[in-house]
This record gives sequence, structure tokens and C-alpha cells, in this order.
Amino acid sequence: MSVLAIVPMNEDMKTSQRMKTQTISSLSNKHMWHVNKPNNEAVELASYQTDKRSEVAFRQFPKRTVVATGYTAGYESTGKTEDHPQYGVTYSGLPVQRGDISTIAADLTEFPLGTVLYIPDYGYGIVTDIGGAIEGNKIDLYYEEVEDVYREWGKREVDVYVIEKGEGSVTASDIQAWEQAITDESIPVMNTN
Amino acid sequence: MSVLAIVPMNEDMKTSQRMKTQTISSLSNKHMWHVNKPNNEAVELASYQTDKRSEVAFRQFPKRTVVATGYTAGYESTGKTEDHPQYGVTYSGLPVQRGDISTIAADLTEFPLGTVLYIPDYGYGIVTDIGGAIEGNKIDLYYEEVEDVYREWGKREVDVYVIEKGEGSVTASDIQAWEQAITDESIPVMNTN
Repeated sequence: MSVLAIVPMNEDMKTSQRMKTQTISSLSNKHMWHVNKPNNEAVELASYQTDKRSEVAFRQFPKRTVVATGYTAGYESTGKTEDHPQYGVTYSGLPVQRGDISTIAADLTEFPLGTVLYIPDYGYGIVTDIGGAIEGNKIDLYYEEVEDVYREWGKREVDVYVIEKGEGSVTASDIQAWEQAITDESIPVMNTN
Repeated sequence: MSVLAIVPMNEDMKTSQRMKTQTISSLSNKHMWHVNKPNNEAVELASYQTDKRSEVAFRQFPKRTVVATGYTAGYESTGKTEDHPQYGVTYSGLPVQRGDISTIAADLTEFPLGTVLYIPDYGYGIVTDIGGAIEGNKIDLYYEEVEDVYREWGKREVDVYVIEKGEGSVTASDIQAWEQAITDESIPVMNTN
């Protein structure tokens, strides 16, 4: 591969590229403060800003819609424990990494080994790995810890419906009563599985 | 708590409730087929349909915007291993469960123990648990396996940018070259952490 292929070597273009990048970085710093604030408006704002900034910065590159999940080197994702000789080693033979550019898994017929993607809310990913369920437009994003997957990728802002506010205690018979209400459809039943 | 409180006891109302529910169920069945199809249009359609059906079915209940993550009874979420006497036991003393109604964790000042929520794409949840990071509008949805969290809740459809298509192989020096390109900002740099 060749980074040169995507980097304008003309001095003026390099300057304009750098200026644009600096604008992005300052925007970025301004909004990262919000990302750390534990309220959903901030989550919404941060995602919105990330999307907007991505669109500006990456307008020049082809866009692909994918379905992305997170994974780790751990047993739950790879079936390998830490004592396995190939623990943390991707299909390409290169070790997993999470950094300025992170290793990701893809369907190699869609994204060959060495493909570099920019994934909003994740960063740069380079395809070094594959996965059993990673077919077609699916990609798997490497994270160091299961908790990182939960908190960084597996977080959704969603509108929920308050069916009943609790009284501060709950028993097994409360749960049974609700199960009965669902079984006899006295409250709405929607199969989301 | 009282299920009766939310169930119209008037016969006509019960009938209309049941008819509405049946409409929802058949809609549901029609669209569940899409949910299982491994392509992103289906994911998009399924979520859209779930949202629309939720709005109709739950219009009568108060809506709250929350930030939801998934968790399991496992060590990565609870710090307890399977041999721990309290493994799989929630703060209320009731065991975790994933079914017609599932146990969830919340900030008890927002959603007291026993509160029942309907969460689109998850189902009914009853607050029986708490969590270290679960404060304010955050809730944690119980799943049996880490992989369930990844595949069912931690899945996002996202537009990614193809910076460079790979040639089918990748080496450590390729990764170093990309890291250099990011360091000297010859490709856009956006801090998403």
C-alpha cells in the first residue's frame, strides 16, 4: 500500500489540508468535553458533531454503509484464553491494537487485508482480521476490554416507555404478575427477538 | 405494584386493547423475518418498524430518553465469577433473568426498584439492579452472554469512509506508515476518544 497515493504532495494542498485538519482538531477539543459529561444531550451532541466533522474531513473518500460490532481478543470473541499461543494475534499474523489506527475484522471479499477505513466514533481501522459472523457488510471493531465495547460502542440513546413507576421494592411475585400480564396480552406484546 | 392499575377492566376496552395487541403481533411477525436477514437494510427496516410499532402500542405511557448499555452477570460487568455465592443475584436479591420481562439496572432515584420500562429492541425490563456507572438517565440491560450484548445491543449501522482499499496483505510496516500519516496529519485527524 502507499500512503503517498492519498496525500497531496503539492505544498499548497498540504497547507490547506493541514489548515483544515487544525480546524477539525480545535472543533474536536471543544466537543470532547461534552462527550465526557454523563447526560444524553452530550452523547447526542458529540455523535452529531462527530458525524458532521467526519463528513467535512472525509468528503473526498468513498463512503460505505456497514453494520459494525465490537470485539476483544478475549475468549468471548475468539475462543482463545490468554495462555493460548495465538492469543491477541489476528488472522494476518499481526497483533491486535487499539490506537491512532486500530485492527479490525472484515469480510475479505468486501474489504481485503490492509484496507483502511475511517469509522466515526471509533477512528481509523485497518483490516487485519476476520470473524465467524463477519460476512458481507459487517465489520468487527477491536477494543481492549469487554467494558470498552459496552461503554464506547454498545451505548444507545433510546426513548423508553415507563409502564409503571416502582414503589422502591420488587419481589418474585411482582415479576410473575408482569409475566402474566404479558402472557394474556393485557399489556402490549411486541416480539423484538 | 399493581398490574390492574394499567389494565382497563371495562370489557369493551379490554377487547379493543386485545385487538390492538393482535394487530401489533401480526405486524411483528411480518417484520421479524427481516430482523433475521443478515443485511443492513433489514437492520434499518427492523429498527424503524420496531420504533413505529412501539409508538403506536405505547402512546399511552410516559416516554423517557435514556442512555442504555448492556451487561451480563459475568466478571466483566459484576466482578463476580460463577463460583461467587451472589453470582447472578441482583441488588434486590432477585436473580437476573432475560425473558418476556428482563431484569435491568438503573439509578434508583430516577427509576425505583420495581419500575417497569418498555425498551424498543429489548423488550420489557423491570428494575431490580444497580450499577457503578449507572447514574442519572443511564440504564443497563441484562443479557445472558457477552456475545448477546455485542450482537443484539452493541450493533450499529454506520457510514464508514474507505481511505484505501487493501491489496490483500498487510504488514507491521504498513501500519507504521499509516500511524506516521496520522501523526503528521497528512490524513485527517479527529479525536473521537
